[in-house]
Amino acid sequence: LQTVSNAINAPHLLRPKTLARVLASIEELQYVPNQAARSLRTKFSGAIGYRVFPPDRRGSGGVMDRFLYALSDTARSAGDGLMCHTASSDEDEITIFDRLWQQRSVDGIVIANTHYDDPRPDWLLQHRVPFVAFGRPWGRDLERHSWVDVDGAAGTRDATLHLIEQGHRRVAFLGPPKPEDRRSGWRRAMRAMRLPTRGLNAMAQDSIASGASAAHALLDAGDPATGFVCETDAIAIGVLRTLDDHGLRAGADVGVVGFDDSIGAQLVRPGLSSVNQPLDVAAAHIVRILLSHLADRSTPEHVVLRPELIVRGSSQRD
Amino acid sequence: LQTVSNAINAPHLLRPKTLARVLASIEELQYVPNQAARSLRTKFSGAIGYRVFPPDRRGSGGVMDRFLYALSDTARSAGDGLMCHTASSDEDEITIFDRLWQQRSVDGIVIANTHYDDPRPDWLLQHRVPFVAFGRPWGRDLERHSWVDVDGAAGTRDATLHLIEQGHRRVAFLGPPKPEDRRSGWRRAMRAMRLPTRGLNAMAQDSIASGASAAHALLDAGDPATGFVCETDAIAIGVLRTLDDHGLRAGADVGVVGFDDSIGAQLVRPGLSSVNQPLDVAAAHIVRILLSHLADRSTPEHVVLRPELIVRGSSQRD
Repeated sequence: LQTVSNAINAPHLLRPKTLARVLASIEELQYVPNQAARSLRTKFSGAIGYRVFPPDRRGSGGVMDRFLYALSDTARSAGDGLMCHTASSDEDEITIFDRLWQQRSVDGIVIANTHYDDPRPDWLLQHRVPFVAFGRPWGRDLERHSWVDVDGAAGTRDATLHLIEQGHRRVAFLGPPKPEDRRSGWRRAMRAMRLPTRGLNAMAQDSIASGASAAHALLDAGDPATGFVCETDAIAIGVLRTLDDHGLRAGADVGVVGFDDSIGAQLVRPGLSSVNQPLDVAAAHIVRILLSHLADRSTPEHVVLRPELIVRGSSQRD
Repeated sequence: LQTVSNAINAPHLLRPKTLARVLASIEELQYVPNQAARSLRTKFSGAIGYRVFPPDRRGSGGVMDRFLYALSDTARSAGDGLMCHTASSDEDEITIFDRLWQQRSVDGIVIANTHYDDPRPDWLLQHRVPFVAFGRPWGRDLERHSWVDVDGAAGTRDATLHLIEQGHRRVAFLGPPKPEDRRSGWRRAMRAMRLPTRGLNAMAQDSIASGASAAHALLDAGDPATGFVCETDAIAIGVLRTLDDHGLRAGADVGVVGFDDSIGAQLVRPGLSSVNQPLDVAAAHIVRILLSHLADRSTPEHVVLRPELIVRGSSQRD
């Protein structure tokens, strides 16, 4: 038994002739190591834990689904499986981490959708579970653990400059109050171009209805907005509906840019310009960093990726 | 050691006093069985294998993402994990089955998107891997293995009868040539209502562009269609675009129904009526049947579920 084990795990310990004989037998018997037996010895399960989020049906749908696919695909290339679980809350997700980790059903964890007051990183750090976050630690020390994120501010800055280039001066931003990331890119671009932001800094929740009503207020103002940079595609699609109701043409009259290049962005007419996150690249970094932590390199790593503006009819004058 | 093992796995073998003492120690030590050690003994890994499909960006997006979430959620309720992998083809998926099964990384497999000449069931049957298919075995003996499917014909029949009820007589069907399931429901409903199908039985691929051009031909015909039942939402969204270009109003002038209640169906104006598959119920049956196979009940089971017509503006006259 030990000889066979050595042939697989430490072939240099065997005499060449013995090794050849064992390998021939392995070939003949079509032997494949049992993952459970191997796990007991190597302490690796060959699986990465990840929480699946419910598909978003609000119009900005598809981003987390694309991320899950990219993560699963990268994990597979690395020879790992992606062990998916659902959870009803952060606390519920932590009870799953606890079971997976105690049973060593996974070697490490990927968390996504990080947010303010997120209890998950604390728990994972405290229990010394190897993990990487997709999303920075909002409101916390950025150096605490590994994370990969997309530079939202760079995306909205590009979107704002693009609308200004199309001749718009009154460019509004629509989004939730927090996080500030995407809004800050718009604000900085407007200031850099010496354009006023007063009366253009608007709040909207991530929904078509909320985007539509915020746009309504901005269009009915004394000095109406002619450009809209939106935190999400759902908000931007709401803006497009309001333009429609006001008899305004998206693109020709008013420029609109969303964020996340969702299914909806390609579906609506005249096509919604949108900022696209490089999810494949993010997933590749996340798996690479997680595997380096499993190999005992424990220094946290941080990667910020630049998103890309995809221009469609909603922001083009001609 | 044997006593502790019995306390967990066969408590009835222990005297009550011994059992109490062991359980107290387990409590005190916060003992959790190592999954690898448990797998070696029970031969169960606690995981179900499933292939993640790339998110569909064509407008009928979201169905397989919703199914994956439902499957993961049901597996969790049953105490199992969902081991996700990507694959580039059926053959590639089979190489993954081979590895997962030989290593016993999963206890069973769920396959989805079954189709004509699907090599996966044959391989799984031949290697005696417990599995359940989401989708019937197209073109093969229905009794060979367990599957859960949605009655597409019942869905399109409901959609056709709904359009006829709204006053439409020239109701067309648009879809790919195979499988015949959804088309057959339309044909039967039209025949049952003694309405002609001639010139209304049209082919379209699963895309907005293909749906748009098929609708164009049907609207320009001598006796144009005023109702459209479509194999997918992407095709139906294409029909809506053509109506728009012809100055026809969806709902008031022409009735349109899609299939799969995708993100797009809720996004387009005036809302696309669509047939919704009960994916949660399907996932629950699949996990239940798979677990029964793991528990050695090997008789194949087949479940056909009835979909539900969701009526929105695109098919309502008022």
